[in-house]
Amino acid sequence: MIKRIPGTAPTRAKAVVHNGLVYTVTTAPNKSAPLYEQTREALAVIDCNLAEVGSHKSRILTATVYITDMSKKAEMNRAWDEWVDPANPPRRACIGVVLEGQDLVEILITAAQ
Amino acid sequence: MIKRIPGTAPTRAKAVVHNGLVYTVTTAPNKSAPLYEQTREALAVIDCNLAEVGSHKSRILTATVYITDMSKKAEMNRAWDEWVDPANPPRRACIGVVLEGQDLVEILITAAQ
Amino acid sequence: MIKRIPGTAPTRAKAVVHNGLVYTVTTAPNKSAPLYEQTREALAVIDCNLAEVGSHKSRILTATVYITDMSKKAEMNRAWDEWVDPANPPRRACIGVVLEGQDLVEILITAAQ
Repeated sequence: MIKRIPGTAPTRAKAVVHNGLVYTVTTAPNKSAPLYEQTREALAVIDCNLAEVGSHKSRILTATVYITDMSKKAEMNRAWDEWVDPANPPRRACIGVVLEGQDLVEILITAAQ
Repeated sequence: MIKRIPGTAPTRAKAVVHNGLVYTVTTAPNKSAPLYEQTREALAVIDCNLAEVGSHKSRILTATVYITDMSKKAEMNRAWDEWVDPANPPRRACIGVVLEGQDLVEILITAAQ
Repeated sequence: MIKRIPGTAPTRAKAVVHNGLVYTVTTAPNKSAPLYEQTREALAVIDCNLAEVGSHKSRILTATVYITDMSKKAEMNRAWDEWVDPANPPRRACIGVVLEGQDLVEILITAAQ
């Protein structure tokens, strides 16, 4: 049994649930904001996506945070530290890459349902 | 029980199966082709790798598509959209990175068996 | 049941265990070493992290190896080939990215417990 939550594009899902695990991905809705705000917004979307399938940030297992400017990592970290459940921190990696358009951050999450 | 399908290099597998999940990775066999063709070829290898362990593209949970030139993402998307099972889209992320040699695309897949 | 092994930062874990899978991440402790040594050191930390939760390199399912200089991939490969269990190779991807500070390599592992 695989449950798929449609995203904006028909050829990919914003979340997939299988065997007690939730896989989700997001970027920030507002692409013109700087990294701190984009991270905050992206994490808020993660909250929504997880809630939609009965999970929660306290059940996140792993996070991969792709950012486009490693020299601004502290901005991402600030938003992360304000948001994360400190009693339940996931494994996290932060990687500098190229993203599409004005995206400054993209976040991949695996969570327990 | 972990099943490992050997790849070309002895120190890594082209696919691993454990507890109902399949993990596979590929690049295009023909490195001189442009991004659209490399993506098509890489996705055809994914089909083979999944078939070899009794899975199928309709059972893919997540895909990470690494490309070397984000300005050409539309080429990758075209090959993706032609290939994906539209009734069963996975979570997908497309990330701009550096790959080895002439590889323009590398695809990581997690699928249900 | 999710088990989290604290890392150096309170807002992320160095390893997370859930439903028979171990998720861990590391960089090299000694950031001034070249890529071969950083990879060797990072893999030694992986050994420790896996042992701490009752797993082992022979049970690794997937590895994502992020490096900052693809032209030096052979150095990483040498450390990898010396370290990996050749009877139990995982799916591996090596991706060129930007990392923080002097990190030349960062390794993400999913293993069976």
